[in-house]
Amino acid sequence: MQAHTFFLYLLIILLTARIFAELAVRMKSPSVIGELFAGIVIGPSLFGWIQPVEALKLMAEIGIILLLFEVGLETDVRRLINSGSKSVVVAVIGFFTPLLLGYAISYYLFDLSLLVSLFIGGTLTATSIGITIRVLKDIRFNNSSEGQIVLGAAVIDDVLGVVLLALLYEFSTSGGINWVNTGKVIIFVISFFVLAPLMAKLISVIIRHFNETSEIPGLLPTTIVSLVLFFAWLAHAVGAPELLGGFAAGIALSRRFFLPLGTILRTDESFARTIEEQMQPIISLFTPIFFVVVGLSINLRAIDWGSPDVWIFSLLLLLTAIAGKLIGPLFIRENNYSRLMIGMSMIPRGEVGLIFAELGRLSNIFNNQIHAALVIVIVLTTIIPPFTMKWFFKRYSHKLLTFNP
Amino acid sequence: MQAHTFFLYLLIILLTARIFAELAVRMKSPSVIGELFAGIVIGPSLFGWIQPVEALKLMAEIGIILLLFEVGLETDVRRLINSGSKSVVVAVIGFFTPLLLGYAISYYLFDLSLLVSLFIGGTLTATSIGITIRVLKDIRFNNSSEGQIVLGAAVIDDVLGVVLLALLYEFSTSGGINWVNTGKVIIFVISFFVLAPLMAKLISVIIRHFNETSEIPGLLPTTIVSLVLFFAWLAHAVGAPELLGGFAAGIALSRRFFLPLGTILRTDESFARTIEEQMQPIISLFTPIFFVVVGLSINLRAIDWGSPDVWIFSLLLLLTAIAGKLIGPLFIRENNYSRLMIGMSMIPRGEVGLIFAELGRLSNIFNNQIHAALVIVIVLTTIIPPFTMKWFFKRYSHKLLTFNP
Repeated sequence: MQAHTFFLYLLIILLTARIFAELAVRMKSPSVIGELFAGIVIGPSLFGWIQPVEALKLMAEIGIILLLFEVGLETDVRRLINSGSKSVVVAVIGFFTPLLLGYAISYYLFDLSLLVSLFIGGTLTATSIGITIRVLKDIRFNNSSEGQIVLGAAVIDDVLGVVLLALLYEFSTSGGINWVNTGKVIIFVISFFVLAPLMAKLISVIIRHFNETSEIPGLLPTTIVSLVLFFAWLAHAVGAPELLGGFAAGIALSRRFFLPLGTILRTDESFARTIEEQMQPIISLFTPIFFVVVGLSINLRAIDWGSPDVWIFSLLLLLTAIAGKLIGPLFIRENNYSRLMIGMSMIPRGEVGLIFAELGRLSNIFNNQIHAALVIVIVLTTIIPPFTMKWFFKRYSHKLLTFNP
Repeated sequence: MQAHTFFLYLLIILLTARIFAELAVRMKSPSVIGELFAGIVIGPSLFGWIQPVEALKLMAEIGIILLLFEVGLETDVRRLINSGSKSVVVAVIGFFTPLLLGYAISYYLFDLSLLVSLFIGGTLTATSIGITIRVLKDIRFNNSSEGQIVLGAAVIDDVLGVVLLALLYEFSTSGGINWVNTGKVIIFVISFFVLAPLMAKLISVIIRHFNETSEIPGLLPTTIVSLVLFFAWLAHAVGAPELLGGFAAGIALSRRFFLPLGTILRTDESFARTIEEQMQPIISLFTPIFFVVVGLSINLRAIDWGSPDVWIFSLLLLLTAIAGKLIGPLFIRENNYSRLMIGMSMIPRGEVGLIFAELGRLSNIFNNQIHAALVIVIVLTTIIPPFTMKWFFKRYSHKLLTFNP
């Protein structure tokens, strides 16, 4: 691909993302909806101007790990740990309910095979942490108690999703599952979450030292981005989702990170602020690319809109996808407003669901009808919750838990 | 390419660039030498860890246009225009001398064909504006009178280089040259340089307006990068080098830009400063990628080091490449120290020469020996001048023209 064509692609993406986001906000909708919509408009669904070429996809991946880094920066790790048990309940119930319901509908009602039914269930499991987080940030709700529960649950959910994807993939190729390997992956992932922030914190101390002594400007942007890329790579290496590496790095560098190690690694407020200032423009540049590329990956034209089977199947799966995530919060001790807000926040499927669906199609597990039904479900679960969340928050924010903006 | 592999590539590039740049500065060398060297070390010349894959090359291209944008931001357009006639003399003489000398050596001394000889001459013409500018910035000399002359000359030289490349390419494929088309291109390019800054200035007024009214953070990074990408694309569309589009956009947004149009488009100091602050981290992130990728594109192993012909040919071309650029400043009215400084600044060939050499090899105009000789010349002209410039500047800065840091 020639540089000038790429420049044109990138500028169309950045500009349409911005224009649609501004329009969305003026229509009282979350800006992320505008960015997703921009991708649908300029992508294969409508005008077909832009192909999601490799370089764009890779820059989009940088965008999502940087967004998770930013969310980590703003996260209070004490409160995240405090809401831990609630997050686990919300995540685990919200993961297995759509998996089992989706499997049951496919297997018993539509007579699909075991593998296909499991893969359909799997597609319905994973909350799109990116979209959820962006909406929570858009309405400045990410630091609320509910926001912390959702954040923790989305992280756990994402890990479960990756483990399930690996299991299903193994099952589809070899016909069986190696539980020892699965156990190893789970241990690796847990160790990663305990050790990565410590390691990132140590590295940040080294970066701070060099930042004070370097004569060449621009040390922070390159080293902090390198740090985030490193932990994303490391997360993948231990079998965890890459974006969680960005999150771990962000937590470690946040102003509220604490360590029992004492004073050497204590957080330097002004250094944390400098990092935020220097990273902000870079994050703002890359993040919209991710959401536009999610929009580009959806091809509404490829769906067979005339088939009633697709619609009935979609509708049942959609109900499963929504109900499956609303059930989880019923098992934690909160008022019903908070439960509903948490449940709604877990509904968006977005990019993770699309990856499942695409993998299913490419490995001939899904035929076109099943793939179409799943894409419809993913699109609707991605587009509807931002609106309902924003509306609900506006109307009932006084009924919600301790609200800390 | 998978995202996690790309993350690893990118972080190795960013980190090695930084480490080698820091080492270079501690050894009293320009930091850009460190970045080029990083590319040589991690690339095919030594360890071969990193391939310059497409996504990296495209990010590198963004890096170079952003660097030119930054240089434009720091440029005083009045002084650039004032030094215009001197720049033209330096550029034109420094362009045609190596072209004709390189041609003559190849055609008469080494009995090469007309096309091959012209292509060799062409490879020796183009100053690497990126490397020259980085060295001038490293030693804080870019805003000196000599710096302005070099900047103007490098811009003109780059335009001449692109026109020549197009002509030679046409000649090599069709056997003739369409002078009407060439004339059109030259008119387009001149119009671009007159109109682009006006247009960019107008767009920046719109951006400033939206920046004041937008409720979503991060407007400046996306819109300013879009602006730079747009002018890079536009430059290519009219037949000019893309990086000059970035330069034109930078000039328009600089604090020192002026327009005879009156007060509507007057420069807002605080807005210009905000742009600089917001763009700085992005520029610092992308720019090193470019210089590392230049290093990655050089394969020192592919050179047949044992052949004496290659060495003799290289040596003659190297002398041509150096002498050709030192002669130009002799025709302008400056003292000899300034002339030598200007001449040395014009010597680096870098990426433009590599593009010529690569095109020559791919279209079978150059055999391996000629290609190797040219790569040696490009490497030496790229690596030596930063050292001599820094040394000369340190020793004789008091003898140079009005020095405005």
